[in-house]
Amino acid sequence: MARPIITLTTDYGTSDHLVGVMKGVILSINPEVNVVDITHNVLAHDLLDGALTIGQAYKHFPPKTIHIVVVDPGVGTERRPILVAGDQHYFVAPDNGVLSSVYDQSEALYVWKIISEHYFRQPVSKTFHGRDIFAPVGAWLSKSWQTAAFGEAITDFVRFAIPKPKTAGNTVKGIVLRVDQFGNLVTNLTPTEVPALASTDGKFTIRAGNAAITKVVPTFALGPAGEAVGVIGSSGYLEISVNKGSAARAVGAGRGAEVTVELS
Amino acid sequence: MARPIITLTTDYGTSDHLVGVMKGVILSINPEVNVVDITHNVLAHDLLDGALTIGQAYKHFPPKTIHIVVVDPGVGTERRPILVAGDQHYFVAPDNGVLSSVYDQSEALYVWKIISEHYFRQPVSKTFHGRDIFAPVGAWLSKSWQTAAFGEAITDFVRFAIPKPKTAGNTVKGIVLRVDQFGNLVTNLTPTEVPALASTDGKFTIRAGNAAITKVVPTFALGPAGEAVGVIGSSGYLEISVNKGSAARAVGAGRGAEVTVELS
Amino acid sequence: MARPIITLTTDYGTSDHLVGVMKGVILSINPEVNVVDITHNVLAHDLLDGALTIGQAYKHFPPKTIHIVVVDPGVGTERRPILVAGDQHYFVAPDNGVLSSVYDQSEALYVWKIISEHYFRQPVSKTFHGRDIFAPVGAWLSKSWQTAAFGEAITDFVRFAIPKPKTAGNTVKGIVLRVDQFGNLVTNLTPTEVPALASTDGKFTIRAGNAAITKVVPTFALGPAGEAVGVIGSSGYLEISVNKGSAARAVGAGRGAEVTVELS
Repeated sequence: MARPIITLTTDYGTSDHLVGVMKGVILSINPEVNVVDITHNVLAHDLLDGALTIGQAYKHFPPKTIHIVVVDPGVGTERRPILVAGDQHYFVAPDNGVLSSVYDQSEALYVWKIISEHYFRQPVSKTFHGRDIFAPVGAWLSKSWQTAAFGEAITDFVRFAIPKPKTAGNTVKGIVLRVDQFGNLVTNLTPTEVPALASTDGKFTIRAGNAAITKVVPTFALGPAGEAVGVIGSSGYLEISVNKGSAARAVGAGRGAEVTVELS
Repeated sequence: MARPIITLTTDYGTSDHLVGVMKGVILSINPEVNVVDITHNVLAHDLLDGALTIGQAYKHFPPKTIHIVVVDPGVGTERRPILVAGDQHYFVAPDNGVLSSVYDQSEALYVWKIISEHYFRQPVSKTFHGRDIFAPVGAWLSKSWQTAAFGEAITDFVRFAIPKPKTAGNTVKGIVLRVDQFGNLVTNLTPTEVPALASTDGKFTIRAGNAAITKVVPTFALGPAGEAVGVIGSSGYLEISVNKGSAARAVGAGRGAEVTVELS
Repeated sequence: MARPIITLTTDYGTSDHLVGVMKGVILSINPEVNVVDITHNVLAHDLLDGALTIGQAYKHFPPKTIHIVVVDPGVGTERRPILVAGDQHYFVAPDNGVLSSVYDQSEALYVWKIISEHYFRQPVSKTFHGRDIFAPVGAWLSKSWQTAAFGEAITDFVRFAIPKPKTAGNTVKGIVLRVDQFGNLVTNLTPTEVPALASTDGKFTIRAGNAAITKVVPTFALGPAGEAVGVIGSSGYLEISVNKGSAARAVGAGRGAEVTVELS
């Protein structure tokens, strides 16, 4: 039988001891686990960024993967730790909406608030539940697979809406959800909502920062050097991109910036 | 039987080939090893930062974990490579004090200088002992567990004191040991030495940078927005913190800065 | 039997979901794989930097390791995906020269263009072949080891020359290939080509940025504080180094800068 997989998605960064400690805690409970980093560079305290990251990654892992997601500005307060079973994946996270994109993509969805403290590392600190609650719960789950043993089923879990584009007349307004490593501006606009983006006849103008873009090309390298173009990225979203350059710098826009599509 | 675990803590960063090479060397000697990164972002050449990092991480790993720690400004000089058995953990490192915090926490402590060159990768470079000495020694140890085979027991290993707070009258002087990923200032002050910090009646003033703090709250989110407060962190140290912000920026203080507590 | 090893070398960074997704895809196909990061911080779109990184790392891994290398500015265009068997290692990469250093070091060399689309993740995006082609091909190879099943042997694969030093009179002109984590300037000059560098009698002047260096020392710590010196690094190249400092900052030179050695 294959080893259980536990993934980690946090805003802890990789400069401190925090991530190493979580791995040590997991391996101390279940040495058979294959611990896999998704990223530890979610923007600090940014629930939307965390939600988008795990939302784009989890489905690519095998069934029965346990995903620990710790973006947790409210650590140590009344917010609850939860365990989630969504379709064929498990999630351990604070109940603050960081799993919202997972909820959106899950047909079957079971959520438990975690209350069985004998699974926690003791004493439980007020500031590092990654070590004291989320890592141990994930590790114990990978041994028993008994979700109900960890707490009580709930239905009032916290969920927020991933920002959706708005249409007014022949203009669709979206935003930049993320700036990726290459400086591409990943928007919340998709060809499903704006079918014109899938055409190649350029009957639209995309505005972002100081750019007015009339071209959507199939891939980054097909953009003329130095010019901002649109690309439908690998997750289905419109991205503003500059061939071998940073669109964020070139057009002067970042996370949260408005992106409009005017249809002509 | 569970696979042996070797952890890596270095100041090599993750942009070069160095860390990958160490992993390749380990797996070439013992393909069963589970190699786990603690961090590769110890401040360059900074023995104290390295000592604090491994000191806060190692105990969370299972017994028999082998920790390779490479912060090694003296690589290729007369400083010795050492192998350490401390309580239930093993360490491979340069003998420059980077294990000082481990020594402080270990009841039983055995140290060998590593001299058995047949365990080294040959030829041994003068500049990359992570590849040529520390990784291969760790990997061979994970096969044989025969510590004495690697060298001679020594007692004159290098050890430095982690900076301790000083009390003068009703003022306790400490320093900022580290700035963490979120900008929290981790000090060397603990409630053991300054019991007032554990109280909630505010009979003290903490000064760091331009801040005068009279509040110690149980967790980050309980600090008023934008205001610096004290928090007793997950490792027991007083941290100066700003709710959802960077205390380092807000109070204008960094690693090594003085932190005083005036008791009233 | 040991678990198969797949290494990853990319310019994806570690802030996005991309690397996590590749690992998920690999483990979904072959859960037995040990996925090892070499680095994800190759300079964006920089084929030379990628070639040097994998060229310095791969040989340290065990025979039969599969190395996935994705520096791919031409993703989604006509450039081919290839599978390479070089001596005892396997490589999966775009055919853009990123394996040039591997080719230089391989005695036996077999290259296939990958055309068997049933091994791809469907639908194949135009922008994320790491997920849709390279990761799945590497994972399937780790199960079958049947290289020829993936495509057709080719001999016209893309290969570029790693920049070599040039000699004119008693001056040898090289360049800075990389700046490492510590700020050392790694040049393309070696004692094989410039034997004087191996001597200790200082009958040469090395010029880089604003520095005129007459000393090559055995290791970093033997350089006088603050002074730029030469060091023959662990890969055999001359490096310009400052003891406990950044040579890049100290001499004002970076990647691609000219480095000359004048023999006297």
